[in-house]
Amino acid sequence: MSQPTYSKRILSAEIKNYIGERIQVSGWLHKKRELGGMTFLVLRDREGLVQVLDEKSTEAEKLKGLQNGTILTIEGLVVEEPRAAGGAELHEPNIVVDVPVTDVPAIEVDKPIDHKSENLETLFENKILSMRNLTERGIWKVQAGIGDAVREYLKSQQFVEFHSPKLIAGETEGGAEVFKLDYFGKTASLAQSAQFYKQIMVGTLERVFEFGATYRAEPSMTTRHMTEFITVDVEMGFISGLEDIQAVLSGLLNYAATHVWERYESELVALKAVKPTLTKEIPSVPLKKLHELYFAATKEDTRNEKDPTPAEERWICEYAKKEWGTEAVFITEFPASNMKFYHYRSETNPEVAERADLLFRGVEIVTTSQREHRYSKLLEQLKAMGGNPEDPGFKYYLQAFQYGMPPHAGFGMGLERLTQKLIGLNNVKEATIFPRDINRLAP
Amino acid sequence: MSQPTYSKRILSAEIKNYIGERIQVSGWLHKKRELGGMTFLVLRDREGLVQVLDEKSTEAEKLKGLQNGTILTIEGLVVEEPRAAGGAELHEPNIVVDVPVTDVPAIEVDKPIDHKSENLETLFENKILSMRNLTERGIWKVQAGIGDAVREYLKSQQFVEFHSPKLIAGETEGGAEVFKLDYFGKTASLAQSAQFYKQIMVGTLERVFEFGATYRAEPSMTTRHMTEFITVDVEMGFISGLEDIQAVLSGLLNYAATHVWERYESELVALKAVKPTLTKEIPSVPLKKLHELYFAATKEDTRNEKDPTPAEERWICEYAKKEWGTEAVFITEFPASNMKFYHYRSETNPEVAERADLLFRGVEIVTTSQREHRYSKLLEQLKAMGGNPEDPGFKYYLQAFQYGMPPHAGFGMGLERLTQKLIGLNNVKEATIFPRDINRLAP
Repeated sequence: MSQPTYSKRILSAEIKNYIGERIQVSGWLHKKRELGGMTFLVLRDREGLVQVLDEKSTEAEKLKGLQNGTILTIEGLVVEEPRAAGGAELHEPNIVVDVPVTDVPAIEVDKPIDHKSENLETLFENKILSMRNLTERGIWKVQAGIGDAVREYLKSQQFVEFHSPKLIAGETEGGAEVFKLDYFGKTASLAQSAQFYKQIMVGTLERVFEFGATYRAEPSMTTRHMTEFITVDVEMGFISGLEDIQAVLSGLLNYAATHVWERYESELVALKAVKPTLTKEIPSVPLKKLHELYFAATKEDTRNEKDPTPAEERWICEYAKKEWGTEAVFITEFPASNMKFYHYRSETNPEVAERADLLFRGVEIVTTSQREHRYSKLLEQLKAMGGNPEDPGFKYYLQAFQYGMPPHAGFGMGLERLTQKLIGLNNVKEATIFPRDINRLAP
Repeated sequence: MSQPTYSKRILSAEIKNYIGERIQVSGWLHKKRELGGMTFLVLRDREGLVQVLDEKSTEAEKLKGLQNGTILTIEGLVVEEPRAAGGAELHEPNIVVDVPVTDVPAIEVDKPIDHKSENLETLFENKILSMRNLTERGIWKVQAGIGDAVREYLKSQQFVEFHSPKLIAGETEGGAEVFKLDYFGKTASLAQSAQFYKQIMVGTLERVFEFGATYRAEPSMTTRHMTEFITVDVEMGFISGLEDIQAVLSGLLNYAATHVWERYESELVALKAVKPTLTKEIPSVPLKKLHELYFAATKEDTRNEKDPTPAEERWICEYAKKEWGTEAVFITEFPASNMKFYHYRSETNPEVAERADLLFRGVEIVTTSQREHRYSKLLEQLKAMGGNPEDPGFKYYLQAFQYGMPPHAGFGMGLERLTQKLIGLNNVKEATIFPRDINRLAP
């Protein structure tokens, strides 16, 4: 068998442009059935499916003993057929087996993939096959589309993309657990956020973003936690207040939802996704107000909580959808008693930190905050929280402020989380092509 | 001091559109000099510089004791001035100090940054300031522009972006050294390439790419080695031969060079970069032919070498520029005796592996190869090289082939290396905003 040539290949989505002509298609054998002496074949390529009718089943003889997944090149006559996927199918085929598959696939690619939580491990274990399922594959096309849309929007707002290192020395912003590794006899950590680097970059490019891997050594096995994920990190200098970064987030979510839906409607429909309802400007609810609204509605008293509870997050999203016609809402005015050392305290109310959480469809998808940009204040806040300014993790970060930083704010948004919520998947790992958690390091 | 507002801010590149009007600019104090009772200030923002003339030096009094880097908002009258950066400058200023800087900067941001090799460590140590230098900052704008152009080109060829995990179990393609880390009591490695994942993705999306971090635990301190860098990984299914991926590379390098030069000409000129000369189709020279040409020209005998020597790489690039009018050239027909287990052996000559190296301006910037896509052959080649098919690093990878993979080829291209060669920097670390090597983990 000499190497096949694909120079004349026509993709499935284009065959309807060749009605009455003989053309060549190539792809994976997706399905085969016999009916009254005829053989119907379905071929899969990167765009979709092509149906092939072999009326006398003579060519289909070549597929004896071969399994779905076998790679075929089929030359045939394009015939209009309204019932076929692309409005046309191939007749009078000549079939060439390019790559035979003889082992029976562990799961059937042409059947729906089970996403019930008790079956997720099986889904992940069979990812090599399940990713070939057309509906499933839609998740990865939509995710790429979200990445494209987010980049387009940020670039339209003059943000510049950069890459920060993930191997780092010393302390970081703290909070989650950190993976450590031996680095030529020293200890390095895997970055648990690009926080300090994106702030440093504001000192020169003013508006920056990164799509970068983020690591959390969290030994939790939940629907929300992974040890590795992609964060869209954004930072914006010369802001007049937190409302400037909230406006970027409003614009970004609207742009992404609109454009991903325009470009991937068929994939989203197959995934049973529902188009989000959003207002152009996402409304803000101060945390205190949320607690009061929630108390009035449910008689459950959360008024001492420093963060919205998961139940409140779900409740306010339902409320916002019904009352204000939006599935996204900001929670604002978080208590300063709970703030990180780099947060900026409100000037009008020192009890409040300039932070906002963006909730979408019942969960927080983004935390944003204005950062303390005044060197002496930042140093003071760092020391108050026990940080050592000489630690290599803080030392260079602090230099950026020592030599002049403008007021700035930013956020990190999980790409997989956004994919999950836009599509409506239950578990963030379903929105991750190769998920990593405490038990899973492969595939 | 209450928080400044930037809602009326005009950027440096736009002030010439406001001649005769009073406007507001904000940025870092870049330079200050006094001349015959007048004070000239230069302000820096994300686009460039604005010159401000304070004729009586009364407003400049506010800058007493303050250093360059101080953040100012200046309101003033726009006056045409052909000698100023943007063709205009501000007169009759009102100056507000937004963020004072009192410490003397460790290096002067408005002076050229020394890139001599013996001074690189000082450059990296002072990165927080040196990145604010306008010429230096051009490197990061150009790098973002290269990323944009590469993505645009790949998307125009229907490649889909994806993200593979960098925390992995088990064996990988082998070769370079690997960083290991404790993963909840198990051992994980940091990915030294996205090779297997991008090949797996061909099984569903056919054409994929990733911009991902790559890790090499190489204890070498050279101008070519880093422990962490960004690789553009590309993989293409349903190829008729290696020439298909070479065509993608020709298109990509031409597109990137043209568009980056169009969009960032002023930055590239400031960096003393020279626009590349490229032919639309990059020519190919078989390795044997290279050895012969080199021998004929230099009398140096490399004919037993399985790779081009560094001297040959430089020589053939000079030769190609002079003889064929291109600064890029492919070396092809590498000996099969030197191939990796996943390489595809030539069908017409089993002594040769289907691999090509793309040389640009004297060095290899890409290695590309056709991959063995036939399950039994791949298994055979893996075992021959001592690999264990049950290792989690190989197990899922092999499944992709067991269930049908088309002929495919791909390449990995270092983003920093391409930036280095397009700009003409000596060391790849100069093209990396926060470089990592055996001695450096910060900033």
